Amino acid sequence: MPTVTVQVPSQPTPYDIHIGHGLLKTCAPLLAPYNGRRAVVVADENTAPLYGETMLAALSGAGVTTSLFALPAGETTKCPEQLLRLYDAFLDAHLTRADLVVALGGGVVGDIAGYAACTYLRGVHLIQVPTTLLAQVDSSVGGKVAVNHPRGKNLLGALYQRELVLIDCDTLKTLDARQVGAGLGEVIKYGCIADRALFERLESLGSREALQPVLDEVIARCCEIKAQYVQADPLDHGVRMQLNFGHTLAHALENAMGYGTLLHGEAVSIGMVAAARWGERLGVTPAGCSERIKRLLQAYGLMTERPDGLSPDALAATMALDKKAVGASVRTVLLTDIGSCTGVPLTVAQLRDLL
Amino acid sequence: MPTVTVQVPSQPTPYDIHIGHGLLKTCAPLLAPYNGRRAVVVADENTAPLYGETMLAALSGAGVTTSLFALPAGETTKCPEQLLRLYDAFLDAHLTRADLVVALGGGVVGDIAGYAACTYLRGVHLIQVPTTLLAQVDSSVGGKVAVNHPRGKNLLGALYQRELVLIDCDTLKTLDARQVGAGLGEVIKYGCIADRALFERLESLGSREALQPVLDEVIARCCEIKAQYVQADPLDHGVRMQLNFGHTLAHALENAMGYGTLLHGEAVSIGMVAAARWGERLGVTPAGCSERIKRLLQAYGLMTERPDGLSPDALAATMALDKKAVGASVRTVLLTDIGSCTGVPLTVAQLRDLL
Repeated sequence: MPTVTVQVPSQPTPYDIHIGHGLLKTCAPLLAPYNGRRAVVVADENTAPLYGETMLAALSGAGVTTSLFALPAGETTKCPEQLLRLYDAFLDAHLTRADLVVALGGGVVGDIAGYAACTYLRGVHLIQVPTTLLAQVDSSVGGKVAVNHPRGKNLLGALYQRELVLIDCDTLKTLDARQVGAGLGEVIKYGCIADRALFERLESLGSREALQPVLDEVIARCCEIKAQYVQADPLDHGVRMQLNFGHTLAHALENAMGYGTLLHGEAVSIGMVAAARWGERLGVTPAGCSERIKRLLQAYGLMTERPDGLSPDALAATMALDKKAVGASVRTVLLTDIGSCTGVPLTVAQLRDLL
Repeated sequence: MPTVTVQVPSQPTPYDIHIGHGLLKTCAPLLAPYNGRRAVVVADENTAPLYGETMLAALSGAGVTTSLFALPAGETTKCPEQLLRLYDAFLDAHLTRADLVVALGGGVVGDIAGYAACTYLRGVHLIQVPTTLLAQVDSSVGGKVAVNHPRGKNLLGALYQRELVLIDCDTLKTLDARQVGAGLGEVIKYGCIADRALFERLESLGSREALQPVLDEVIARCCEIKAQYVQADPLDHGVRMQLNFGHTLAHALENAMGYGTLLHGEAVSIGMVAAARWGERLGVTPAGCSERIKRLLQAYGLMTERPDGLSPDALAATMALDKKAVGASVRTVLLTDIGSCTGVPLTVAQLRDLL
């Protein structure tokens, strides 16, 4: 069973990501340190019926007193109102600082349950059990937790370290093709920004079917890459912003189209092709990269062009509100080649023009 | 001008607390590092008319673009609804991660503005300008930020380091006697838990009038003591809980009577006498300490007994929700003498009995 250990310099102890088939059924020994504690398992209305009972059984097997709380599914759940419902659930379960929150689901559940765990009583223990490919390769590593504000995605957030991440590859069997695609967008992103060999391996595999047998290795490799970024830049003030490749446009698209219309990984897929083209126009990215990335994304069934009818002015205005904005410019990640990248400050006027 | 430097181990740089008369009018040079940034000054409807213009002028003098946002005065402001109003104010002011929040007011403003600064965009710069004695000696040092939940005080919170604290002793001239008393309760607390010499100096001064000429020294000494606790225990997992002397009952009183009925320092005053009596009954605190503390608090005009008519059962039940609760017991700070203390786990049944 692949295990990736993440040591964040500001944290006293490292944490482990365990990746395995059927792990939800066999993970009770990994939960033994929480014997005698209370846990609230936070899921959504999709994941609760699929994995809720199995997760509760594993916790009970480790001697943990459990309750399950299901949020509505979808990005719109990541809002202040649902956050207040979570705090109420924690109070109803009499969670104290010694107790734990288990985030069982995709990135939405991980973000809002993590944010609630971070802020309730100034922080309780947090275990993450990501059940989507996107969450497994992206949001399970790093410590970012967030909720959305009506005026922008993830505008409210914090950095908060989880103690344990459990990735059960079997949970992917219940994902629909669109969800898997959204995760593959992020997998391809790691190849683009940091691992040319991964990019070329994905090119030579060439399809979801060929990838399937080696998906656990690929998940572990993505977690390793992300862990390296987090270890190098735990407070997210430097090199970690490279992980935002494709996200400048992606966040604006999600905001403009309404959260939940595009999956995050789909928006990132469109945003990566756009950012590669911006880089080529600005002379930062070698010619041809954007086409090569577009072909790879298409081979794995992903969208690569933004829908018609969105106003470039409105998109650029939304970008100005982005967390990556510093004064009047927005730090945008551009490729210097397949497998390497750099952050470049672009003014809102430049972005408007590139759109 | 006394300056106390606080180095928290997990933070890359120390921060300074500057204490002086008329500091609000002369602090522009201290704000020079923020030249070219934006600031939202958060005050309440009492402090905004008193100090708002002076603060904005100091920031403008340092080249900072400013706006002022006033919250309703009082503990009830520290709620999720007002927090959302603050986020909106930050968005309206186009605050980015490079920009800053200035918390101008007492502990309520410091807590909610600090919480908003911590969570907005995963954290923006924070400067604190405490204008009450309580905030100057207590909440200006440490990094705790919080809002209340309808079911408990400070149930939502985080640890977040401010970059600069400016204490203008002149702002105390506008405080009413009750507010000054609330701050003196915390000053006396430092003597009780950590500094017998401070306690005895306050005894020999014997009145607010005699204290007045040396108040700046006393504020600096309290900040030093608190800074020592914070440096020794930045994550608030150990010795720092000694600062909660008197707070077990105080939080329960504030909750039971409705936030804002008692000032926090008044509740702490009552809670300290109670905790000293508990310690004497449990054989932890030498006999006579509770009477000596009561006399000192009374000399400075503070309440020392809880109001009639509060149900011990209800108070004990509220204590079980306290952040200091671990499983079925509540860690309570008891004095081992005047000037030293220890944390003792008490069951809710024991607390009920002691009440």
